[in-house]
Amino acid sequence: MTERVLILGGGFAGTAAARALRGQGLEVTLIDQRNYHLFQPLLYQVAAGDLQAEAIATPQRRLLRGGGLHFRLGRVARLDLPQRSIVLDGGDVLPYDYLFIALGTVTNFFGNAAIASHALQLKGMEAAEAVRSRTFSALEAASHCTDPAERRRWLSFVIAGGGPTGVEFCAALLELVRVLLPRDYPELRLEELQVTLVQGGAALLPGFAAPLQAQAAGKLQKLGAQLRFHTHVLGFDGQTVQCQPDPAIPAHTLVWTAGVTANPLAATLPGAKGPGGRIIVDPHLRLPGHPEVFILGDLTYGSDDEFWPQVAPFALQSARHAALVLQSQRQGRPLPSPFAYRDPGSMAVLGRFDAVCQIERWHLYWHGWSAWLLWLGLHLYRIIGTRNRLLTLLDWGTDYLRHGAAVELIRSPPDSSDL
Amino acid sequence: MTERVLILGGGFAGTAAARALRGQGLEVTLIDQRNYHLFQPLLYQVAAGDLQAEAIATPQRRLLRGGGLHFRLGRVARLDLPQRSIVLDGGDVLPYDYLFIALGTVTNFFGNAAIASHALQLKGMEAAEAVRSRTFSALEAASHCTDPAERRRWLSFVIAGGGPTGVEFCAALLELVRVLLPRDYPELRLEELQVTLVQGGAALLPGFAAPLQAQAAGKLQKLGAQLRFHTHVLGFDGQTVQCQPDPAIPAHTLVWTAGVTANPLAATLPGAKGPGGRIIVDPHLRLPGHPEVFILGDLTYGSDDEFWPQVAPFALQSARHAALVLQSQRQGRPLPSPFAYRDPGSMAVLGRFDAVCQIERWHLYWHGWSAWLLWLGLHLYRIIGTRNRLLTLLDWGTDYLRHGAAVELIRSPPDSSDL
Repeated sequence: MTERVLILGGGFAGTAAARALRGQGLEVTLIDQRNYHLFQPLLYQVAAGDLQAEAIATPQRRLLRGGGLHFRLGRVARLDLPQRSIVLDGGDVLPYDYLFIALGTVTNFFGNAAIASHALQLKGMEAAEAVRSRTFSALEAASHCTDPAERRRWLSFVIAGGGPTGVEFCAALLELVRVLLPRDYPELRLEELQVTLVQGGAALLPGFAAPLQAQAAGKLQKLGAQLRFHTHVLGFDGQTVQCQPDPAIPAHTLVWTAGVTANPLAATLPGAKGPGGRIIVDPHLRLPGHPEVFILGDLTYGSDDEFWPQVAPFALQSARHAALVLQSQRQGRPLPSPFAYRDPGSMAVLGRFDAVCQIERWHLYWHGWSAWLLWLGLHLYRIIGTRNRLLTLLDWGTDYLRHGAAVELIRSPPDSSDL
Repeated sequence: MTERVLILGGGFAGTAAARALRGQGLEVTLIDQRNYHLFQPLLYQVAAGDLQAEAIATPQRRLLRGGGLHFRLGRVARLDLPQRSIVLDGGDVLPYDYLFIALGTVTNFFGNAAIASHALQLKGMEAAEAVRSRTFSALEAASHCTDPAERRRWLSFVIAGGGPTGVEFCAALLELVRVLLPRDYPELRLEELQVTLVQGGAALLPGFAAPLQAQAAGKLQKLGAQLRFHTHVLGFDGQTVQCQPDPAIPAHTLVWTAGVTANPLAATLPGAKGPGGRIIVDPHLRLPGHPEVFILGDLTYGSDDEFWPQVAPFALQSARHAALVLQSQRQGRPLPSPFAYRDPGSMAVLGRFDAVCQIERWHLYWHGWSAWLLWLGLHLYRIIGTRNRLLTLLDWGTDYLRHGAAVELIRSPPDSSDL
């Protein structure tokens, strides 16, 4: 009988794993609650109106055509390792011979329900579009607001978290409003706008070299951002962002990029967990004691004394290694060498024509337009499909050449009245 | 003091009126609850995955730059003709010297609350995207459904209404699934799919010449549609579409294109109303007794013995005439000749490479690829802005040349959990 592989999650890791298992006589089913693969690294551009969501989303069924690959739309409710099956929302039970868990992370609000219910986040297509809609709604509201305090709240944007997502969104947001306000919002003055980035640590972009961190901070300040280091967001009620230490920031908009935590299903797995609920695996990325279960992507914490970053290159490499190990196991061959992460380097974009870039194994650290050009080429190359590349180019062309926001639409919930 | 013009509604009529009043020393404010102008004639293509919504939406502030034009995002709560002001949701009162009412229509469910809450419609960007999401969700649900009756319900699509919107969507839906199912849904067979168009009258496309009506019916049947004439949808609970006369149709999806009615605010205006609550105007499109109030677009029923269709050409012509009359009134010049509608002809698309077209004043009636080519050129020409034209071309290129759906993403409500 054909052996069945279940892959949970259609992000970088899950999709790469499925494609690495194509045409090997396996029955491979990828399960995701979205019917598309999302190119997450550019999601902040959707939030800032630089890109339309369609440009970075690719239908799963288009990616999984043929070779024994299948797609199943659904949400995993429960894992049943002893029975070698998983249970979906709705009760369907799917058995497996091999299980690839690539469910990724969810936004971590550190248990703060008030922040969770009032803040926006940058995780998933609809969430990113909600940030865009809020940005434009806020400008519209401010443009006819007669109460000065309320007007200031609409024009105050707070970003919690100084990692790549927070920094890249902050730069993109500032470049957006710098072009948009003078041109399309005669009611507003640029000086009224306040964008604050709140970072818990001493520097932006943890993990980057100090000169690049300083470069990023300098660039954001030059664009007009207020930076607050050693500061944590403690609360948010939709009116005021409470900070520690004080002072609080009056603002209607808080975008939360200050942390992720493992998908809650990870907690139901046996064995030791690392920080953020991430899973500790054996040297071949398998769940200890379960050679048939592989843990991929952001959910993987590390093995022995090695720990891996939550980045796309790790997700892709982990998927390919797991596929290799599975083949060896099936064919009774000796396993390949233990997984070793090869860091291709890190990048963060600082608006138009600027980026920071480091390739540690070559001791390369640089910034400026050449780093930006490399970033541009790499990301365009990585986007799946000709059509999505063309869409992205078209949007970027509009953004960069005409200096305009490409996508300014405010979306309403589908059930809102059209009256 | 500068005279103030308020334009209510940013569809074809409202947007055209604003642009016709540009640079005339007036203070013109267009009010809409969406911050974009939507090219409605292509909305059915968004519903069928042929086009992304962004391609047919243009930001209002981009359209209303300069020349005394302003945009205000908001929903009109009340008209106060005696005070010459309008009241927005939230309570803001905006005074006017001239008022252009171009609020259009809303979907008419004829008071059937069950249909209203379970059916989908083709009015507005989010509604059209909801139709697309439902279509793809239904295919996903059917692809793993083990209950035969339930599977049939997921694969049964009912369209109520045989006007241009219903016919065009029906053809586009059938062409979508005919390509998509064999290629991407190996779990489904095309023969299982059932698309039913329910039409109250004896023919499709009321207002078209009989041979073209027959052509449309023949084409839909050839594509695989079931047509039911002289039939009305009486009820829908999300499981079964109740018809008069019988039999009922088991289906989870009903797309309602069977009627529109005037925006509810029209009922608060003084004077006589026509069918569907539409407003009877004087020969210059003004509300009788109110020379400062113009009624434009779909809301206008007619004047004296002349009645006008609810189509884009009328909306545009009515806007231009009203702008002309307003100028004459302000300058104390004699009014132009009464408004006369010039019918440029009607078209409806029947899938790829086929359309019906009639230009009555030249007694021209034809169909086929030349009609389709004319439709293509005209619609592309009418879409506002280079970028949107390019987006549309890119999507159509993908659709027509690669025979694939351009946009297959299932959207979730923004507040749905990402777990």
